[in-house]
Amino acid sequence: MRTNYCGLISEQYLDQTVTVKGWVHRRRDHGGVIFIDLRDREGIVQVVIDPDTPEAFALADSARSEYVLSITGRVRARPEGTENDKMVSGKIEILAKEIEILNAAATPPFPIDEDNISENVRLTHRVMDLRRPQMQKNLRLRYQVAMGVRRYLDAQGFIDIETPMLTRSTPEGARDYLVPSRVHAGEFFALPQSPQLFKQLLMVAGFDRYYQITKCFRDEDLRADRQPEFTQIDLETSFLSENEIMDITEGMAKQVFKDALGVDLGEFPRMPYREAMFYYGSDKPDMRVNLKFTELTELMKSEEFKVFRAAADMKGGRVVALRVPNGAKLSRKDIDDYTKFVGIYGAKGLAYIKVNDVNNITNDENSGLQSPIVKFLSEGCLKTIIAETGAQNGDIIFFGADKAKIVNEAIGALRIKIGHEHGAADGYFVDEWKPLWVVDFPMFEYDEENDRWAAVHHPFTSPKVGHEDLMESDPENCLARAYDMVLNGWEIGGGSIRIHRADIQEKVFAALKITPEEQQEKFGFLLDNLKYGAPPHGGLAFGLDRLVTLMTGAESIRDVIAFPKTQRAQCLLTNAPNTVDEKQLRELSLRLRVKQENPQG
Amino acid sequence: MRTNYCGLISEQYLDQTVTVKGWVHRRRDHGGVIFIDLRDREGIVQVVIDPDTPEAFALADSARSEYVLSITGRVRARPEGTENDKMVSGKIEILAKEIEILNAAATPPFPIDEDNISENVRLTHRVMDLRRPQMQKNLRLRYQVAMGVRRYLDAQGFIDIETPMLTRSTPEGARDYLVPSRVHAGEFFALPQSPQLFKQLLMVAGFDRYYQITKCFRDEDLRADRQPEFTQIDLETSFLSENEIMDITEGMAKQVFKDALGVDLGEFPRMPYREAMFYYGSDKPDMRVNLKFTELTELMKSEEFKVFRAAADMKGGRVVALRVPNGAKLSRKDIDDYTKFVGIYGAKGLAYIKVNDVNNITNDENSGLQSPIVKFLSEGCLKTIIAETGAQNGDIIFFGADKAKIVNEAIGALRIKIGHEHGAADGYFVDEWKPLWVVDFPMFEYDEENDRWAAVHHPFTSPKVGHEDLMESDPENCLARAYDMVLNGWEIGGGSIRIHRADIQEKVFAALKITPEEQQEKFGFLLDNLKYGAPPHGGLAFGLDRLVTLMTGAESIRDVIAFPKTQRAQCLLTNAPNTVDEKQLRELSLRLRVKQENPQG
Repeated sequence: MRTNYCGLISEQYLDQTVTVKGWVHRRRDHGGVIFIDLRDREGIVQVVIDPDTPEAFALADSARSEYVLSITGRVRARPEGTENDKMVSGKIEILAKEIEILNAAATPPFPIDEDNISENVRLTHRVMDLRRPQMQKNLRLRYQVAMGVRRYLDAQGFIDIETPMLTRSTPEGARDYLVPSRVHAGEFFALPQSPQLFKQLLMVAGFDRYYQITKCFRDEDLRADRQPEFTQIDLETSFLSENEIMDITEGMAKQVFKDALGVDLGEFPRMPYREAMFYYGSDKPDMRVNLKFTELTELMKSEEFKVFRAAADMKGGRVVALRVPNGAKLSRKDIDDYTKFVGIYGAKGLAYIKVNDVNNITNDENSGLQSPIVKFLSEGCLKTIIAETGAQNGDIIFFGADKAKIVNEAIGALRIKIGHEHGAADGYFVDEWKPLWVVDFPMFEYDEENDRWAAVHHPFTSPKVGHEDLMESDPENCLARAYDMVLNGWEIGGGSIRIHRADIQEKVFAALKITPEEQQEKFGFLLDNLKYGAPPHGGLAFGLDRLVTLMTGAESIRDVIAFPKTQRAQCLLTNAPNTVDEKQLRELSLRLRVKQENPQG
Repeated sequence: MRTNYCGLISEQYLDQTVTVKGWVHRRRDHGGVIFIDLRDREGIVQVVIDPDTPEAFALADSARSEYVLSITGRVRARPEGTENDKMVSGKIEILAKEIEILNAAATPPFPIDEDNISENVRLTHRVMDLRRPQMQKNLRLRYQVAMGVRRYLDAQGFIDIETPMLTRSTPEGARDYLVPSRVHAGEFFALPQSPQLFKQLLMVAGFDRYYQITKCFRDEDLRADRQPEFTQIDLETSFLSENEIMDITEGMAKQVFKDALGVDLGEFPRMPYREAMFYYGSDKPDMRVNLKFTELTELMKSEEFKVFRAAADMKGGRVVALRVPNGAKLSRKDIDDYTKFVGIYGAKGLAYIKVNDVNNITNDENSGLQSPIVKFLSEGCLKTIIAETGAQNGDIIFFGADKAKIVNEAIGALRIKIGHEHGAADGYFVDEWKPLWVVDFPMFEYDEENDRWAAVHHPFTSPKVGHEDLMESDPENCLARAYDMVLNGWEIGGGSIRIHRADIQEKVFAALKITPEEQQEKFGFLLDNLKYGAPPHGGLAFGLDRLVTLMTGAESIRDVIAFPKTQRAQCLLTNAPNTVDEKQLRELSLRLRVKQENPQG
C-alpha cells in the first residue's frame, strides 16, 4: 500500500520507511549506483538503488522511462551539495529496499519533460501529453477554480440544478448541434447553447438561486479559441438588482483568484459601455494598457483633409487619435507592420504624426511634427490634436478614420498590441490583474446584413427601467440591464436582469421582428410561464475555459481542457467524429447526402 | 431589498421590520382583515393586512394565487391558539405596512398544494409542478447529495476532470445517441454512455484520483425508471485495491446519508455474488426482507414429481423453496395473484405447501401439509423440505423449478413482493436502510441469443488474480475484480479493478470474440495507451438519479430530475424533440427517410 505521494516526501519523513508508486521520470547510473527520479501527480522523488540489494538493483536496472514502479525504502538526507531547493523532496532521497515493476512501458512518443512539441502530436498522444507537469498543473488549477466557485456559491445559498442536454432546437443565434430521435422519426433534439431558458424557468419555479457548471455546445466555425463544447459557470437569482448580482459574482471572482493564485483583485471599477467604446474602442478594454483614444470626429468636420473629413462626415463615422508615449522612436518598418496589422480589421491605412517639438507646431513638414499628413491639416487643428492628446516630445500619435466599427476595432487592437509590445518599457503597461465591469450596454445593435435590429446580449435581457418605450421609438438609445465582467481585455462573464413580464418580452420579440406566430412556436413555453407569476430575476454566465486559460497563462483554451477538439472539430485521440454503421442510420430514419469515404473508418 | 426568506422568520425576529418576497400561496378574508400565506423556497409566512393601511389593503385585495409580492411589515406574535407548530414561522405573523405587486399571475393549471395530479399534466406544466414543496425538497436533497459527494471526494484528494460529451461511437453495449458532424460530412459524434475509457486514460495520464458528476446517454427503449440522459457519480483511482476503493466509496455513501438524512448506515456487509444468487436469486438482494431460498435441486433429482425432477435434471436448472412465516393464512386468491406475478418472470406456475402440522408429515392430502403437490412427493422428501426450510406450523412454502434464471427472477421477485406486503406484520421485514457490497462477480455470462460469452460488467474489468487462464479454459468460473453497492434491493453503484495490461485486455477481447482488427478499430486508443505505462487502477460509478430517488422515497426517477423526459423520450414542456429546417439537415448532409409530418411543428 502506498504510504506517500512521491512529490510530498520532505525532511519530516527522515529515517522512515515509505512506499511510493509512480513513473520512472529519469534513470541514471552513477558510480555503480542507480538513481531513479520517480514521478507521481504530486511531483518527483529521487530513489537510490544500491547493488547491496541485488534483487531491487536488477529490477531497477531493467526499468525504462515511464515504467510504473512500486518502491519501498528508507528516507535519508541527500549528501551535502546535492540538495535541490526547488523541490519539496529536494533535501531527501529514498534508499530502495524493494522494487516491484507494476507495468512496463513502450518508449513514449515524446519525452514527458519536453515542452516543444507540435500541437497535433500532443493531441494525438494526448494521454502522454497530459502527463506533462504543465498540463497536470493546468487541470488541477481548473479543478480548484471550479470547486472554489461551488463552495462560494453554496455558501451564498445557490443550488446546483441540472438542466437537460437533450433539448429543443431553436434556430436563433449560433448553429445547434442536433441529435436525431430514434423513437420520433424525423425529429431532433438539440444540444444546449446555454441553459438560459431553463434557468429562467427555474426562477419562475421559485428556486431563488441557481447555479450549474455545465457543458454548452455551438456548431460554429472554430476561431482560435473556441471549442464545439465549452463549459459555463451559469447562475441565476430572483429578486436581486444588477448591483447585488454584480457584488455576489465579483466576490466569487475575488475568492477564486485569492484561493487559486493568492491574488487580491481589489474592487472592480464599473464603466458604462459608451465610455469603454469612447476611450478604448472596445466593450472589453484591457486596462493594463494605459492608453486612451482622443475623439477627433467633430474637429475633423471642418478640415480639408479628405481621409479624415470623409470619415467625420459619414453617418456612423469616427476619427480618433491614439497617443503613444515615447513612440517617435518607432522605425518605418515598425509603422509598416502596424499598418498591416490594422488592415486585418479593415482599416485602409494608418496615419501618424511623430512629435519632435511641441513648441514648434505648424503644418510645415520640417516643423516639430514629422508626418506625411501634417501638410493636409490646419495649424489650429494640429495644435488641438497635440493639446487634446497631451502629446509630449518623443511621442507618436496614430489616427483612425473610418466607420466607427472599423476605427474601434483597428485602433482598439493597435492600442493593445503596442501596449503589450512597448508599454512595459515605456511606462504605459502594468503587469497586474485589471478587472472591471462594463455596464449600461445598449439593447440593440443594427444588423446591416439582415437590415434589422438585433439583440446585443440576447432577447431575454430587460431594458432599463424607463427605456421600455424606446424599444420602438428609438432602439439605438434603448439601454439594457446588462453587465459584463472583463479581465485583462477578456470578457470572462456576462449577464443581465431578464424580462419577467410576458408583455415586455413580447415587445422585445416584436422589436427583433419575430412574429407572434414564431414567438409562440419557439418560445411559447417561456411566454406561458412568465404569465404564471414570474419573479424579477437575473444572472450571469462565466466561460470557465477562458477564465482558466487566463489564470494559467496558457496559450490556448485547449491547454486547459483534458480532451479538446482541434480547430477542425476533431478528437485526434479517439478519431471522432467517425463513420457509423448503416444500421445505426436506418434506426434513426436518416440517409446521408454524401458517400461514406471510409465506412467504419 | 429582501431582508429574510419567508419560511425562516421565527420568533427571534419579533418586533423587527422585515421585507419578504414571494408567491401568494393562499389568501383569505377573515373579519375584515386579509391573510396572505406568502411562499418562497424556504417555506411560508403568514401576512396580515389591516384596512388601517388602505394602500396595502387594496393591493392585497387585488392579489390572487401565485401573484408575486414584496411585503414590508413588522413581525408580531400570532394570537394565542392560532400558532402552527409544524412551521418555523408558525408562532409569528407579519403585519404588513407596504405591499408591492412584482408580477401578476394567471390562474395556475393546478393548485400548488395539490398532490394528486396526473404525471402528463405535471410534465406539461413542469414549471408550476416544480413550485410544489415536494419537488422543491427533492431537488434540494439532490443538490445536498451531489455537493456532499464533492466535498467528500475533494477531501480524499479526488479531482473533477471534465470528459468530452462529443465523442466516438463504439457500437458495443447500449445504443448510442449520435450527433452528426457538419464539418466532416457523413461522420458522427456519439454522446457518451459513460466516461469509462476517458477516466481510465486519465489514470494512465497520472491524475491518480478522478471524479466527475456527469451526464451519460443511452438510446434505449425506456423502462419505468430509465431516462435517455442520466447522471453518474463517476470515479477512478490508481494503485488502490478493491478493498481500498470500497472503503472510500462506502465512506462517501455513509457521509451523504448522515448529512442529508441524518441516517447512520453502519458498516456494509460484503457478500459474494454466488451467495446472493444462492439465497436471494438476485445480485442486488433487498436485505430488508428476511427470507431466504432453500436449495432443493439435488434433492429433487431422485423424486418422481415431473415438474421438479425435470428442472433438477435440466442443464442449468434449479429448484428452490421459499418459506414464508405465517403464510398459511394466504387465501386462494392471494396465491392466484402471486402465481400470475411470477408468470411475469416466465415461471409456468407456483407450487406451494401450507404447513399446518409439522409433526404430521406424510404425502397424504389430509396430513399436516396442505397442498396439491404433496401426493407427488415422497415422505422423506417432504420431511427434508420442512427440515431444511425450518418451516413452522402456519407457514407457507413456495417453490420455483425451472431454468435457474427464471427461478431466480421469479422467486426472487416473489420474495420481495411478499416481504413488502406481509413482512412488517409477520416479522420478516425491517424498515431500515440495508446496504451491502456484492463482490466476486463472474467475468462472463453466456449470451444464448448470440451463442457467445458476454462481459457481466464491461470488457475492461480485470479478472481475479490467478483467474487469467480461466478466461479461455473455463470462462464460466472465471471471477472478476468487480463490486456493486446495493441498497434496499437497488444497485446504486458498480465498479471494478480495470485491466491495466494491454496483453490481458487483448485476451478479454478475444474471449468476447472481438477480432484483433475490431479491437484496433474500436479500442486502439485504449490498447495503445495501456502500453505506455498504465498504472493498476479501478473505480466505481453511482447512479445519482436512482440514489436520490431512493433517498427521497420518490415514486419515479422523474421526480428527482428538474426537466425529465417521458417514457416516450419527450420533453412535454418544450415539446422536444421537434422537426427542424431543411436548411439544418442540408448543412449536416442528411436526408430523412420519413416525411416530416409537421414541418417545424
